[in-house]
Amino acid sequence: MRPSGRDLSEMRAVSIETGVTKHAEGSCLIRMGDTHVLCTASLEERVPPFIKGSGQGWVTAEYGMLPRSTSSRMRREAQAGKQGGRTVEIQRLIGRSLRAGVDRNALGERQITVDCDVIQADGGTRCAAITGGWVALRLAVNKLMKAGDVSTDPLVSEVAAVSCGIYAGQPVLDLDYPEDSEAGVDGNFVMLGDKRLIEVQMSAEGGTFSRAQMDELMGLAEAGVAQLVEAQRAAVA
Amino acid sequence: MRPSGRDLSEMRAVSIETGVTKHAEGSCLIRMGDTHVLCTASLEERVPPFIKGSGQGWVTAEYGMLPRSTSSRMRREAQAGKQGGRTVEIQRLIGRSLRAGVDRNALGERQITVDCDVIQADGGTRCAAITGGWVALRLAVNKLMKAGDVSTDPLVSEVAAVSCGIYAGQPVLDLDYPEDSEAGVDGNFVMLGDKRLIEVQMSAEGGTFSRAQMDELMGLAEAGVAQLVEAQRAAVA
Amino acid sequence: MRPSGRDLSEMRAVSIETGVTKHAEGSCLIRMGDTHVLCTASLEERVPPFIKGSGQGWVTAEYGMLPRSTSSRMRREAQAGKQGGRTVEIQRLIGRSLRAGVDRNALGERQITVDCDVIQADGGTRCAAITGGWVALRLAVNKLMKAGDVSTDPLVSEVAAVSCGIYAGQPVLDLDYPEDSEAGVDGNFVMLGDKRLIEVQMSAEGGTFSRAQMDELMGLAEAGVAQLVEAQRAAVA
Amino acid sequence: MRPSGRDLSEMRAVSIETGVTKHAEGSCLIRMGDTHVLCTASLEERVPPFIKGSGQGWVTAEYGMLPRSTSSRMRREAQAGKQGGRTVEIQRLIGRSLRAGVDRNALGERQITVDCDVIQADGGTRCAAITGGWVALRLAVNKLMKAGDVSTDPLVSEVAAVSCGIYAGQPVLDLDYPEDSEAGVDGNFVMLGDKRLIEVQMSAEGGTFSRAQMDELMGLAEAGVAQLVEAQRAAVA
Amino acid sequence: MRPSGRDLSEMRAVSIETGVTKHAEGSCLIRMGDTHVLCTASLEERVPPFIKGSGQGWVTAEYGMLPRSTSSRMRREAQAGKQGGRTVEIQRLIGRSLRAGVDRNALGERQITVDCDVIQADGGTRCAAITGGWVALRLAVNKLMKAGDVSTDPLVSEVAAVSCGIYAGQPVLDLDYPEDSEAGVDGNFVMLGDKRLIEVQMSAEGGTFSRAQMDELMGLAEAGVAQLVEAQRAAVA
Amino acid sequence: MRPSGRDLSEMRAVSIETGVTKHAEGSCLIRMGDTHVLCTASLEERVPPFIKGSGQGWVTAEYGMLPRSTSSRMRREAQAGKQGGRTVEIQRLIGRSLRAGVDRNALGERQITVDCDVIQADGGTRCAAITGGWVALRLAVNKLMKAGDVSTDPLVSEVAAVSCGIYAGQPVLDLDYPEDSEAGVDGNFVMLGDKRLIEVQMSAEGGTFSRAQMDELMGLAEAGVAQLVEAQRAAVA
Repeated sequence: MRPSGRDLSEMRAVSIETGVTKHAEGSCLIRMGDTHVLCTASLEERVPPFIKGSGQGWVTAEYGMLPRSTSSRMRREAQAGKQGGRTVEIQRLIGRSLRAGVDRNALGERQITVDCDVIQADGGTRCAAITGGWVALRLAVNKLMKAGDVSTDPLVSEVAAVSCGIYAGQPVLDLDYPEDSEAGVDGNFVMLGDKRLIEVQMSAEGGTFSRAQMDELMGLAEAGVAQLVEAQRAAVA
Repeated sequence: MRPSGRDLSEMRAVSIETGVTKHAEGSCLIRMGDTHVLCTASLEERVPPFIKGSGQGWVTAEYGMLPRSTSSRMRREAQAGKQGGRTVEIQRLIGRSLRAGVDRNALGERQITVDCDVIQADGGTRCAAITGGWVALRLAVNKLMKAGDVSTDPLVSEVAAVSCGIYAGQPVLDLDYPEDSEAGVDGNFVMLGDKRLIEVQMSAEGGTFSRAQMDELMGLAEAGVAQLVEAQRAAVA
Repeated sequence: MRPSGRDLSEMRAVSIETGVTKHAEGSCLIRMGDTHVLCTASLEERVPPFIKGSGQGWVTAEYGMLPRSTSSRMRREAQAGKQGGRTVEIQRLIGRSLRAGVDRNALGERQITVDCDVIQADGGTRCAAITGGWVALRLAVNKLMKAGDVSTDPLVSEVAAVSCGIYAGQPVLDLDYPEDSEAGVDGNFVMLGDKRLIEVQMSAEGGTFSRAQMDELMGLAEAGVAQLVEAQRAAVA
Repeated sequence: MRPSGRDLSEMRAVSIETGVTKHAEGSCLIRMGDTHVLCTASLEERVPPFIKGSGQGWVTAEYGMLPRSTSSRMRREAQAGKQGGRTVEIQRLIGRSLRAGVDRNALGERQITVDCDVIQADGGTRCAAITGGWVALRLAVNKLMKAGDVSTDPLVSEVAAVSCGIYAGQPVLDLDYPEDSEAGVDGNFVMLGDKRLIEVQMSAEGGTFSRAQMDELMGLAEAGVAQLVEAQRAAVA
Repeated sequence: MRPSGRDLSEMRAVSIETGVTKHAEGSCLIRMGDTHVLCTASLEERVPPFIKGSGQGWVTAEYGMLPRSTSSRMRREAQAGKQGGRTVEIQRLIGRSLRAGVDRNALGERQITVDCDVIQADGGTRCAAITGGWVALRLAVNKLMKAGDVSTDPLVSEVAAVSCGIYAGQPVLDLDYPEDSEAGVDGNFVMLGDKRLIEVQMSAEGGTFSRAQMDELMGLAEAGVAQLVEAQRAAVA
Repeated sequence: MRPSGRDLSEMRAVSIETGVTKHAEGSCLIRMGDTHVLCTASLEERVPPFIKGSGQGWVTAEYGMLPRSTSSRMRREAQAGKQGGRTVEIQRLIGRSLRAGVDRNALGERQITVDCDVIQADGGTRCAAITGGWVALRLAVNKLMKAGDVSTDPLVSEVAAVSCGIYAGQPVLDLDYPEDSEAGVDGNFVMLGDKRLIEVQMSAEGGTFSRAQMDELMGLAEAGVAQLVEAQRAAVA
């Protein structure tokens, strides 16, 4: 029995509201249940040094949590003087995931930075950030295409992510915080719109899992991502 | 003539939405025109070392801007490894201002941290942060009182702030970004609900001002704060 | 009754000794009673990136306190690994204030850095830093003019600052440390030689003030600045 | 065809030399081909604050690379002033992996820090660090048991890790640097001695992979880990 | 021929002015020619953790240079976010040197911090800092003794330092900046009042020196220190 | 009587193993008894800004200790966020010492960075680092010469270093850790192959020494360096 009463394979309600800030080239507020992440895509006509002159573009991401997005107040990272290990790990994952859906030659020598800031957290913030981040990216790229700055669509597919885990001995989809903090095994699956895999991260803290369970979790994830991709398509339509 | 077409003494539309995040003891989203600031008040049953054992409480504030709250993307301070000078200056001002409306003995030995995070910026973010921050603080204190943790109301008055400046040679109220970036003289007035002054900061960059102009600006500010206090009262009613 | 026995509108003894270090283009040691600040102006033939190529110059300031300039030893900021919030706030104020008296086109594309280091502190260090900093700046600019590097005098007026506050219920001028640490309301007024205002910062910690009191303080400040400007003129004559 | 001429499922030569430093409670130098990692386990009779008084122990890990362990010299992280994102990610993985094989109640309230320093790098350093780190941990725990400080063996199983990836279209085991830098898909599998999974990290940069390929990689990994566990057992026998 | 016209074994004029700041327990301004260093000794009734409970005291030192103490302006270390290597090296030397003249049991469990801040630099700042630092320390200890807080004098001897080097092929005493920047070999000798050695640091950058030259330099240093000790005694008499 | 049973003038066994890492242009593992330091020399075809365009080369050094190279685990400097004062002091010494044996014009505009990482520490690590660092440097320069990139040998002599001190009242050569931690006086002598001096650092913590003792120590050092130079020559032959 899940704390929320959901079925084992039941996602939380997903909503994606676009155009939520007037400055960013693309933006959305994604809600996965009580997890709310503000995603913006910012376009810059410059690239990191290591690809300068290559004709290729770059997509990168940054992640943050507002201090009181969580149940007890967290210390502000700007105050602490550095981004914590978890933050760095997450923003590297978001950037890597989004780039997997991008044709960097088609994008041309420009950079898009996707900022994902958690307004309210209830588990699964990194998956929400990837899923919402793709929507912001899509909208920014649409703007580029409309302006005629790129001719071939640089986005080859949607990119979406969902968490899975083993809670109370059973594989479950889309963990919320009460599940996440109890689950001995949990992780994230990032996929393209056609279910090709980009990233699989399954990790046990205080437990282990079998190859058969891994397979079950993968099945749940495929179903979950399918729903998210649908929501993405509706949002940018 | 103001870029927005407003009269010299006309404020932007103000709205204060409360209860916008489920974790914080008090929260609101304040909108002053296109400036949107999310304010949360977090209660902790501990105080800073310098008042431990004094029986008095503490109210402090932190301020941040989301990277793409501005017209071009700003570097994330957590990434830069420290809060910039402007951030530090602003959060010290917010904390000092809010404390002026607090009876710290009545609060008792506990700390309330008010976080003000700018979601979208269009001038006057620090004033919006003070005005909205007070609403979050009020809601958190209400919770304390309802729970019977404090008996005497520790909030002696509303605290609100408005900016004024000299734009195109004329004193104006509540500057937006296009005005703010042009004004040779501008500043902030922080007042209690009864118009007693808490903080006056008037500053010239590329201009100066006379004692008579200072007096005119003060008059505008009194009128502006009166409107803000009304909005605060409505929000927490 | 003031701890020092001074009248409410009585300044401390001011002395400004110039030429106190052989390396700086301009320098002075300003003493406001027991507050002693060493000010140097350093000329560099380069400007910050944001005005490169504009033909305009820049004046900036830095502020520091020797560890034992205060009653109990303070931690050295170089040791702590960063400048504290108060330091950053003060040096931004000094730079902004001094620039208000500078015609940056007349200065030409060069930078003058004014360093203000507190040797001994007894209240009012930021005001002493501004007043003494202007003297160092004046001397450095004189050198430039004598060398024929600038033809029109880039300094349009003196810049001086004085503190005021409400001590024991009464408005007083030029607070020393015992007053400063008790005053519920205090602040700084920065003016040009002709009394035009550059910066007004009046702040209450544990008290508030009325519009009438604000006006009284402004009157005291005008009288105080007049004396400081006289001392500046004598020092650079 | 692999650059090294190895078969698709062929591991590099593994050697584990124990007792390589006289100070550490446990130590080894693990060589996976040209990847050489020095692992030490340091015992401390204290635990991190969050488990103080719980009766449980803690195992943590740190990771570093000597500046010239790589083909071109890397900047020393102590010089750069912080550990990079990759370092932080890796050392969190090592710690999490090793803890999965530890009964923290049996360990008792003490901490073991496993340091993994790369002397020479040729791909797969994090897997070598986990595999060698476990050997150092085993030796340190042996010392504890011999001294009678713990009675029940806190190590419930071996922990070992191997990398897999898709190189030139084919699933391969134990990637070296020339493969690693070309592979569009690669990752790491961490398992207990009985093949239960602890961590699966499969990641695509410039490619994607199917569920069937994921399954194939898992098979390779199981075979690889089996060999590593054998080497671990021989080393600590 | 020395740039200053001094004889090979001729010191610069030394002056030591005591009591230069009202807050510190001991203070002096030492001038060795154009090198001016402000030294203060601050007494605290606490010791570093590593000697807590030992009954012994501690003497430590910190060193800094005002940004424009030098011919061209140096970056402020508080701004740079850390003390540079040279600063750290120097302050460790000053602390170690002063401790050599202290009976830490007689001092009792308290700490004296000697701050040495260079107001104007012309070579030999670290030697001036040691020599002046001892005077500040002596005055602070006198205060302790007068107050009856220590009964046996904890200062067993004077501590003084002088620089020597090989300039234009000849051993010279007390190098000023023009010599220092040219000398291929130079260093510092720290001695007690009875000429016992505490520290010898002789270093070649772009040259070498023989054992015979080393001996000659040591002779010069002994004569130089004798003069400094005389000046110290006069200052504290 | 020395703890190790060695004679007063007896060095520990020295061994220098070359070619210990495949990536570096030059490398060795030097063992002075139980002190083991890994030294690598890395060649880069660029120089620091201050000699760009001068035609001269640069040799610099960095130093580190593995966290468990010492008896109790040290905090990793990359973790602490900066190199400690001791580290900075040592690496400046190594760089300065090695440069004394280099003809920087003959080297040409390129930089060699010598990294010295302590694998196991038992006293005298900085001396071992200099002695082993020179071997790594020699091997890297040999490579440059063989490739015809430099024609005149830029290394004018060997550079080697040994520690001496006064232990239990007697001058001793090559202190190990038990001696080092007890000796009231100790230091390092760096010399060229022909015994010309490069650096003398003799320092007392809790003791002093006479000019006669200084001379005795210098004699011991000359004999010690002669043995080290022999070992260097054998290693690079």
